[in-house]
Amino acid sequence: MNRQTVTVFSPATVANIACGFDILGFAVGEPGDIVKATLSDEPGVRVVKITGDGGVLPTGSEKNAATAGVIKLLNDTNSKVGIEIELHKKMPLGSGLGSSAASAAGGVYAANVLLGSPLSRSELISYAMEGERVACGTAHADNVAPALLGGFVAVRSYNPLDVVRIPTELTFSCLLIKPHVEVMTKEARQVLGTEISLEQHVIQSGNLSGLLVGLMTNDSELVSRSIVDVIAEPKRSKWIPHYDEMKNYLMNQGAIGCCISGSGPSVFSLFTDREKAERAQEGLKDFEADFYLTDVNTNGVSEIEGSIDEIL
Amino acid sequence: MNRQTVTVFSPATVANIACGFDILGFAVGEPGDIVKATLSDEPGVRVVKITGDGGVLPTGSEKNAATAGVIKLLNDTNSKVGIEIELHKKMPLGSGLGSSAASAAGGVYAANVLLGSPLSRSELISYAMEGERVACGTAHADNVAPALLGGFVAVRSYNPLDVVRIPTELTFSCLLIKPHVEVMTKEARQVLGTEISLEQHVIQSGNLSGLLVGLMTNDSELVSRSIVDVIAEPKRSKWIPHYDEMKNYLMNQGAIGCCISGSGPSVFSLFTDREKAERAQEGLKDFEADFYLTDVNTNGVSEIEGSIDEIL
Repeated sequence: MNRQTVTVFSPATVANIACGFDILGFAVGEPGDIVKATLSDEPGVRVVKITGDGGVLPTGSEKNAATAGVIKLLNDTNSKVGIEIELHKKMPLGSGLGSSAASAAGGVYAANVLLGSPLSRSELISYAMEGERVACGTAHADNVAPALLGGFVAVRSYNPLDVVRIPTELTFSCLLIKPHVEVMTKEARQVLGTEISLEQHVIQSGNLSGLLVGLMTNDSELVSRSIVDVIAEPKRSKWIPHYDEMKNYLMNQGAIGCCISGSGPSVFSLFTDREKAERAQEGLKDFEADFYLTDVNTNGVSEIEGSIDEIL
Repeated sequence: MNRQTVTVFSPATVANIACGFDILGFAVGEPGDIVKATLSDEPGVRVVKITGDGGVLPTGSEKNAATAGVIKLLNDTNSKVGIEIELHKKMPLGSGLGSSAASAAGGVYAANVLLGSPLSRSELISYAMEGERVACGTAHADNVAPALLGGFVAVRSYNPLDVVRIPTELTFSCLLIKPHVEVMTKEARQVLGTEISLEQHVIQSGNLSGLLVGLMTNDSELVSRSIVDVIAEPKRSKWIPHYDEMKNYLMNQGAIGCCISGSGPSVFSLFTDREKAERAQEGLKDFEADFYLTDVNTNGVSEIEGSIDEIL
């Protein structure tokens, strides 16, 4: 018998991992969204509750990231049931941490469980991309794929969609820093222009190779040498107060890499040693930002036991 | 006691592996160069014999790819000995198969053995790059590195030089096709221009990720889907007679990938099944080209036993 209600945690994600512009992301342990999905006799998909968004997210199910993909999922699986979604934003919006992706991945994952799990996590990616489409205008996969699959994920192709998980035995602590400034995704995209030099491409490709081989051969020094971005970081870091200073500080504190998360303003830094990450965070306490000290999340969206009141 | 003479086989290499423009190459089992190095009491490095080059290669040791790196090697190791080099070109020049790299890698490898192997294969890369510098004007590493190390190799960075071997358990047969046309490396570079679109970069990066993950997870289907080039192939294939037709034919014959080798005009195609490669070659026999049916060479430059007269 199918379940009546499912509650999931859906993680924030770091996209544009330095040399992996637009194609490479990883999931983190926190922050993230809590999404509760409940079966209903009344057909259709409804957003019945949103918290933590300051009232800015749309409540219409076709426009909300958490439900747009669920509508498509019910259509494609010919499901006549209704699904009601509660969305609890436990993470900042528009901060470069994949907020809409967390909602989108959480919504389709929870709905899929209610339907008896007809689709795999990989198959859910294209549905979660619908959530990105309504929230961001582009159905990109580099946040929803790691949110669903966990770990490090590359988007090989969109046509057809082909997403590749990067196996690694390395474990990382991740210090996320969300400065108290806003960066508009549209502006962050425009500043890049539409062209790059062939030389930039070659440098970025070399580092991408190093990052992937480093992850897959468990060589954290190679990973460290490869977390380099010559395309987006030089143009976007100006919007992040004291970026260069902060990055230098983090690298001196033992981070193996540091770069802009998504299109910013959040910054991620990876550590192989949790204590170093803790000390680094301590030293930044006067910085006007929110901090999350977390791990790379290898599981992706995960179901939560217990009542939602206990969780929230 | 050090050896008096060393003879090596130094392999041809395929650079620009589709999505790995300027950074990714692999070595093959044939063709290649035979390089013989002999210790001499008279200090300095001399080219004492060249065969198979049609008389076009320079005989001055500072200008010959096989010896330029050897001069630097003797200087850097403070070696007062002399070294005489015989270079036997057993492969076509200027065909996109890494001819100068084969000479350069073979020369420094053989000389290093004569010196008692003070340097590792990885350490020899920068010396072999000197050979590329005198032969091509640019000290690029994407042919000499796979020639020295064998297998698939990525150049992460030039400053500092950082070269990464891509481990894989996949074994490939490689059909190399050298059409009877000439492509000038300089022109092949110019046709690319100096800029690409950000979209091309993203597509190429996605495929590069797929290729590397495919190799390292031994997923030949992922490798196959990822052997895609949206930067160089569209602009360079026009110089290769019947390129599209030939590529379609090879893919239909079971090749898992096919693209231009280096800057052409040679074409490489990879097969996981040797018999399919043999049948594919058979079907191309009316094509005006030289063919090499070989394997990806996982060893790189290798020493040859026996006298050079027997070998040649």
